[in-house]
Amino acid sequence: MTSVSPSPTVTSFRVADLSLAESGRHQLRLAENEMPGLMALRAEFGESKPLAGARVAGSLHMTVQTAVLIETLIALGAQVRWASCNIFSTQDEAAAAIVVGPDGTPEQPAGAPVFAWKGETLAEYWWCTEQIFDWSEEAAAAGETWAGPNMILDDGGDATMLVHKGQEFEQAGQVPAAAETDSQEYQVVLETLRRSLDLSTDRWTRIAAEIQGVTEETTTGVHRLYELASAGALLFPAINVNDSVTKSKFDNKYGIRHSLPDGLNRATDVLIGGKVVFVAGYGDVGKGAAEALRGQGARVIVSEVDPINALQAAMDGFQVARIESVVDQVDIFITGTGNLNVITTDHMQRMKHLAIVANVGHFDNEIDIAGLESMDGAVKVQIKPQVHEWRLPTGRSILVLSEGRLMNLGNATGHPSFVMSNSFTNQVLAQMELYCHPERYPVGVYVLPKHLDEKVARLHLAALGVELTTLTPEQSAYIGVPAAGPYKVDHYRY
Amino acid sequence: MTSVSPSPTVTSFRVADLSLAESGRHQLRLAENEMPGLMALRAEFGESKPLAGARVAGSLHMTVQTAVLIETLIALGAQVRWASCNIFSTQDEAAAAIVVGPDGTPEQPAGAPVFAWKGETLAEYWWCTEQIFDWSEEAAAAGETWAGPNMILDDGGDATMLVHKGQEFEQAGQVPAAAETDSQEYQVVLETLRRSLDLSTDRWTRIAAEIQGVTEETTTGVHRLYELASAGALLFPAINVNDSVTKSKFDNKYGIRHSLPDGLNRATDVLIGGKVVFVAGYGDVGKGAAEALRGQGARVIVSEVDPINALQAAMDGFQVARIESVVDQVDIFITGTGNLNVITTDHMQRMKHLAIVANVGHFDNEIDIAGLESMDGAVKVQIKPQVHEWRLPTGRSILVLSEGRLMNLGNATGHPSFVMSNSFTNQVLAQMELYCHPERYPVGVYVLPKHLDEKVARLHLAALGVELTTLTPEQSAYIGVPAAGPYKVDHYRY
Amino acid sequence: MTSVSPSPTVTSFRVADLSLAESGRHQLRLAENEMPGLMALRAEFGESKPLAGARVAGSLHMTVQTAVLIETLIALGAQVRWASCNIFSTQDEAAAAIVVGPDGTPEQPAGAPVFAWKGETLAEYWWCTEQIFDWSEEAAAAGETWAGPNMILDDGGDATMLVHKGQEFEQAGQVPAAAETDSQEYQVVLETLRRSLDLSTDRWTRIAAEIQGVTEETTTGVHRLYELASAGALLFPAINVNDSVTKSKFDNKYGIRHSLPDGLNRATDVLIGGKVVFVAGYGDVGKGAAEALRGQGARVIVSEVDPINALQAAMDGFQVARIESVVDQVDIFITGTGNLNVITTDHMQRMKHLAIVANVGHFDNEIDIAGLESMDGAVKVQIKPQVHEWRLPTGRSILVLSEGRLMNLGNATGHPSFVMSNSFTNQVLAQMELYCHPERYPVGVYVLPKHLDEKVARLHLAALGVELTTLTPEQSAYIGVPAAGPYKVDHYRY
Amino acid sequence: MTSVSPSPTVTSFRVADLSLAESGRHQLRLAENEMPGLMALRAEFGESKPLAGARVAGSLHMTVQTAVLIETLIALGAQVRWASCNIFSTQDEAAAAIVVGPDGTPEQPAGAPVFAWKGETLAEYWWCTEQIFDWSEEAAAAGETWAGPNMILDDGGDATMLVHKGQEFEQAGQVPAAAETDSQEYQVVLETLRRSLDLSTDRWTRIAAEIQGVTEETTTGVHRLYELASAGALLFPAINVNDSVTKSKFDNKYGIRHSLPDGLNRATDVLIGGKVVFVAGYGDVGKGAAEALRGQGARVIVSEVDPINALQAAMDGFQVARIESVVDQVDIFITGTGNLNVITTDHMQRMKHLAIVANVGHFDNEIDIAGLESMDGAVKVQIKPQVHEWRLPTGRSILVLSEGRLMNLGNATGHPSFVMSNSFTNQVLAQMELYCHPERYPVGVYVLPKHLDEKVARLHLAALGVELTTLTPEQSAYIGVPAAGPYKVDHYRY
Repeated sequence: MTSVSPSPTVTSFRVADLSLAESGRHQLRLAENEMPGLMALRAEFGESKPLAGARVAGSLHMTVQTAVLIETLIALGAQVRWASCNIFSTQDEAAAAIVVGPDGTPEQPAGAPVFAWKGETLAEYWWCTEQIFDWSEEAAAAGETWAGPNMILDDGGDATMLVHKGQEFEQAGQVPAAAETDSQEYQVVLETLRRSLDLSTDRWTRIAAEIQGVTEETTTGVHRLYELASAGALLFPAINVNDSVTKSKFDNKYGIRHSLPDGLNRATDVLIGGKVVFVAGYGDVGKGAAEALRGQGARVIVSEVDPINALQAAMDGFQVARIESVVDQVDIFITGTGNLNVITTDHMQRMKHLAIVANVGHFDNEIDIAGLESMDGAVKVQIKPQVHEWRLPTGRSILVLSEGRLMNLGNATGHPSFVMSNSFTNQVLAQMELYCHPERYPVGVYVLPKHLDEKVARLHLAALGVELTTLTPEQSAYIGVPAAGPYKVDHYRY
Repeated sequence: MTSVSPSPTVTSFRVADLSLAESGRHQLRLAENEMPGLMALRAEFGESKPLAGARVAGSLHMTVQTAVLIETLIALGAQVRWASCNIFSTQDEAAAAIVVGPDGTPEQPAGAPVFAWKGETLAEYWWCTEQIFDWSEEAAAAGETWAGPNMILDDGGDATMLVHKGQEFEQAGQVPAAAETDSQEYQVVLETLRRSLDLSTDRWTRIAAEIQGVTEETTTGVHRLYELASAGALLFPAINVNDSVTKSKFDNKYGIRHSLPDGLNRATDVLIGGKVVFVAGYGDVGKGAAEALRGQGARVIVSEVDPINALQAAMDGFQVARIESVVDQVDIFITGTGNLNVITTDHMQRMKHLAIVANVGHFDNEIDIAGLESMDGAVKVQIKPQVHEWRLPTGRSILVLSEGRLMNLGNATGHPSFVMSNSFTNQVLAQMELYCHPERYPVGVYVLPKHLDEKVARLHLAALGVELTTLTPEQSAYIGVPAAGPYKVDHYRY
Repeated sequence: MTSVSPSPTVTSFRVADLSLAESGRHQLRLAENEMPGLMALRAEFGESKPLAGARVAGSLHMTVQTAVLIETLIALGAQVRWASCNIFSTQDEAAAAIVVGPDGTPEQPAGAPVFAWKGETLAEYWWCTEQIFDWSEEAAAAGETWAGPNMILDDGGDATMLVHKGQEFEQAGQVPAAAETDSQEYQVVLETLRRSLDLSTDRWTRIAAEIQGVTEETTTGVHRLYELASAGALLFPAINVNDSVTKSKFDNKYGIRHSLPDGLNRATDVLIGGKVVFVAGYGDVGKGAAEALRGQGARVIVSEVDPINALQAAMDGFQVARIESVVDQVDIFITGTGNLNVITTDHMQRMKHLAIVANVGHFDNEIDIAGLESMDGAVKVQIKPQVHEWRLPTGRSILVLSEGRLMNLGNATGHPSFVMSNSFTNQVLAQMELYCHPERYPVGVYVLPKHLDEKVARLHLAALGVELTTLTPEQSAYIGVPAAGPYKVDHYRY
Repeated sequence: MTSVSPSPTVTSFRVADLSLAESGRHQLRLAENEMPGLMALRAEFGESKPLAGARVAGSLHMTVQTAVLIETLIALGAQVRWASCNIFSTQDEAAAAIVVGPDGTPEQPAGAPVFAWKGETLAEYWWCTEQIFDWSEEAAAAGETWAGPNMILDDGGDATMLVHKGQEFEQAGQVPAAAETDSQEYQVVLETLRRSLDLSTDRWTRIAAEIQGVTEETTTGVHRLYELASAGALLFPAINVNDSVTKSKFDNKYGIRHSLPDGLNRATDVLIGGKVVFVAGYGDVGKGAAEALRGQGARVIVSEVDPINALQAAMDGFQVARIESVVDQVDIFITGTGNLNVITTDHMQRMKHLAIVANVGHFDNEIDIAGLESMDGAVKVQIKPQVHEWRLPTGRSILVLSEGRLMNLGNATGHPSFVMSNSFTNQVLAQMELYCHPERYPVGVYVLPKHLDEKVARLHLAALGVELTTLTPEQSAYIGVPAAGPYKVDHYRY
């Protein structure tokens, strides 16, 4: 574990191993070629540096793709401090590459401060998150007495939550004791803030006051933001990046289409062709999953609770059935519903021998792993990391991938760069909106205006050889749409 | 042309030939099997008759599917008078079957009054539309001195427009002279209203006052309604049926997927497999078209002006190009953009010999037929009805289908019953909302609440053998969604 | 019925109506554009006329596509006389166009003699077949005392059978009495030959002696030829056109992919998307059917008796099941097995109400129509020609298309021109082989050499914009394959 | 490297590390579940042991799947000695598991003798191959003075070649000197045999005399066998397993469909969706590749030299073009032609920056890697093992996978178990044919009779839930095919 501050540029950081930086830099270079949206923003704004003065506290999986995002923010003038938003998701070579920077060396790192490594404890995780709010060294370098971040870039809302809770407890004058029902993780948060309050009674209040806004990546984080806003407790404006069309309809559908079979293959090497696959949920995730599996010659059965999505699945040629009706005929089970206990231990006991069970939905509890772990007589055998055979009392086994967590991350490498380029170009545009145009965004939760959503798409066309057609003035007038867009009404469904 | 009023039930009508009723009834019976949504409404509401007292003025293509809609409205208690909304779209056997009714005979028609036949003149068309507002015979039968309709069911907005213009001119005291730029059709409308004003100075005003609401089927009609509403000129509430998910995402995508290849086949018998097909527009119509043609083994090239849709097309595996770049390699051109002059005469002159040119977009002018007709040296040769070879001065020919109008209607039979069952179940639910719950709908334009959209889908599942999964109470609580729906936020894109 | 001999060119013929010739000529022109193989042969051999002197007796469905074949044979120097090989399959406008010829008029027909019309009786059918062997007028015009054909182009083997049976009975000195088990049709054949024997004791013997060979289109006809050959009874060499790759793998697979959904649509207008379709047989016909239906969004269930084909179906993602297991869930049944009673009356009685039952296999008895017709209490209601509702004693109905005969011909227009161009280019090349190179073909049954099969494919590439790659000399040497082909070993499966 | 002979059962072997056996056994267990054909043979013949007395010299990639094959041969009564047929393809844990056996331990191995490890030198490779012919220890254990194998199971023909060359040189009395043009590998072979001749003048002659037959897995090996047979030099009968339908049409098409995208993903993590992919060759390999890539949303362009395959590609909806026409638009290049220099250095220099270049064809020289290595100014940078960036003098780079060798093996794990189960069930049946029915197979090269090919398929159906339909006696009689098969004529193309 390297944790020194040897250079004038990177004064503090904590990553696994700086010697991984060269390997990480190779991967960054390849990823840049697959992230044309971010590279286009560097070309367009690299000179004018609209983010000059921005101090971005970033909390988002510290992967190769995120590294390209970070260096784009820097190219646009921002300073950043970064933590991961998940204890397992850091790619250590990417973290090292960011700390070292394109022009530094492991001995003379000249990049940006990162606090992330694969396999943090919960305590370490929240310590890392605290670090992205501590800009004392940057303040010192700038001759200031104090500085906090003025922007948050968040994934899941942990960074935003820390600020809100911090200010709340400072105003209350104390951090409450943990309730019995609080999760282990929330107890760590409380402990972190209790230590903070001991040191300063207004640290988070001052930080909150500085922050111009947050841009949030995920459904979960967005959900928290809308709750804060409707409770009147939101402290700064927020942009919901998740619901940009070029995020939700691309990340979910095309990302899963790619990474689901990838995860299955790396985990099991089982032929997908000819198999019966059950896909729970036919939202964008389920649509991408079903398309991918059919494309490999599987027979896909879909389950749905929403009759509209169910009808779509039927019209797309899939059998739609309840899991109970088909559980004993299925070779591979995939969940992507956003709900819990979609696959129960009862289902598991009725499955074929060595049926594969995997989740690509956001939440870990779509498959009742807890129930499995407490089942009398069930034995867990590790076949390889993230692949476990569970021998059930029935005499049959099932194969569980990534212990029920996102298998496209756990068994493969998650969404590929091109998909993330769409999501992250939305992030950068959202950062620019909140930082450069605060007047447009009173405290509240916003989606990006449609013309920026369209811009994200536009920046990804050339890489795919797409020729876009231009409206003639006559056509533009006829349908009452500017030739440069936006082209659709807000409720258009794509 | 039969136009008598021989029975107590059907006191007036005008259709092509009542002897077609038996053939029409056969087709209705088959269509009923494909329209489970409407049949389910008959089962659910046939006894309680929630539309009792409703007098529906209907203006919508008088086809077999519409006939099932009409008889559903009647089964729910409504009285109807019906006209078509297009001079060519009436299926004469369906019109006859409705007039004769399930229990009548051509000699003793006992159904409902229809004013529609295939091939009306414009003057006849507007005369027919007037008839659906004349409920004097129904009034007399009910012992009333006067009656107008109290509901409109509209497709394209002609019936609604007639009422609005009628009242407008009555209040102005005169019908304006036609402007030079007015279309021929609008001149017929003015003439119709001028004659009306001569007979009564308050006819349309009284009609408008009676009307509780209109349910509108199409984009075009909806567009007119929003314009009226935003101008403060809307006279009664309206439900925008077009933007129900189960209408727009099904009718456009799955309807076209079915009827586009059907139209191509009936028109030309040309093998689609192996051909290069150009699809202009990748909205729902274009998505359905591209999927259908790929499913037949064609190589599809898409054009788009919207970068988001263009990126979707690329991610779905299609080449995206401007027509100019590929026009000389394409065998079949399909337009579905909603814009004009997408295919110009310049394009036509660069096409391969006997390239096929066809439109499935709403408007007739996507292909510049007018330009073709005025091209020096171009000769039109009819191969068969709705299929014309145009010999161009280049020495090459092109094949134009349906003279540029909707080829899936002109060369085939339009959307199939199952698709229309979704659209029309929305219509009936919308009629019930406006008629039974006027308090919910002050004057304005509404979409159906999501739970009714979901209900439409739900009613079509059993026919396809779909098993819907039910949320457990625990799951329902976890995601905060009622087990019976609605399941999604309003901006969910499906 | 026109049957005169007004011109020096066409001295006798019998078709439905010569005034249909103009309409037929339009269709021929369009078909020529879709039959690049035949047109390329005209270009290559139109001047050298390798078929000069050939007198071709043709017995093959007298359709628009066959008309292009006939005019290609003529362009290569042949004389032809033509009959259809099926009492229903003649397109009367195509027959008229051939008789009139490109330069003639209905009053002055100047084409070729055709004896075919839609709806012949069996007696008329065999009379027509006799006419293609009577070349007395051509002989007279050439100043000869007698002439027979010297080539047969056959589909199903009726023309070939007539010559063989004719000679057999002449040598026996008598035509046997019909056996009780003989089909009605065979009795007509015996009667025809009995009359012939009364007029001449050596007519067929002389004809057989003149014939250099036959080229046969179908599985059925080929089967007969192999039986004759193995019995030592074959009178002249034969080329099995059916088993050219460019015939069997194209005609069956891509032809059905096109014409099956076309037939369903024209017959029923039922939405295919979302439906459950049962496809019996996963040979080339079944593969084309399953692909087409999946391409329209149906869920396809396949049945097979051959485990290899069954495994292919599974690997292609289809459920494979016995009809008994799924009969009550299926909306549309398609048979394409080449076997009988694949769908029995027991199955029919278990089907869903208004299930559609249709056959695209060669033989009429895949569906037990005879059993249906003799079922107590079953009532047949014609919905429209070739579409019948059968009301069964169960209270449910089924829809039977084309009375169980080939529905892609009965309800649509059969294989499209481009597919037939492949088959017919094989025919012309086979005629040239047998006529120009008799030394290569002692009496026996042959398939076309692979280089000619490849040539057929080659002639169809440009029309589809296909660029073929050429082997470099180095590559050609490396794999030991001539740069010009043939490229594959004979047992290669494609 | 472990090389001891501690137990009565496994008296000699050489593998990488016996401690890998447990991990290998886990993988074998999972693979058995995916290899139902082999497991069914164990069930059917495990008791009767038809291979009792068979001594099988096996030369085939020592993978997990091969391990299941080996243990199946043993279960049927055979003794085996095994080497790999490729210096890189051994999975060391599988080799260890076979040596240890299901009941042994690393300390007390009780399985079968294997001579294979990942990364052999050429000299080591041929030493290993020699070991599978040395049965002296088995002879001793059986109380015999000498024993050779009596069966060969070969992949690529190296084992067969060694016997043939060995006998040839023994009869000649000397091993020839290496010619200048001989490959380095052939020089090692000569050296091996020279040493052998020094020790014994009739070793290979005696071995050859014992051998009842060889079963050969691949095209390459089969090619050699046909050459030997046509030269009259074949020493024992051979079964060509490669051309079983259930091998060639499954292994090539469905195997590649699975393992090609798997290899791309593991190597590059590049999103396949939306990319332009060039697939050289549309044989079974190309068909599987094109289907897989389209299924992931890529736009596929195919090249072909055979016009029939080219026409198939077009009819399947793919653009068919020469590489020169599209090389600068392509993102990913895949070769699968069986020819050399399909991608030249000229092509490489015209490619897009970071275009991916990969081969799934049998031969290593489809891509001109040698030309690339000798290109002035080209620099090779390893991104990770089997993934190299080549920086070209143009300033652009390309990514080459597996140095041009089979990338589905080099970057992924090759064909999955289910596919190999088909191939290997053919192998076992072929071993049984030659060993148990020598009277049926005089010296020559054979394919398996169709009923055994069908049996292979049949044994894989239940695992996929396939229900096979059975011919009724009436149906069987009607088409003249036994209800139990074989169902097709030999030239049927599937």
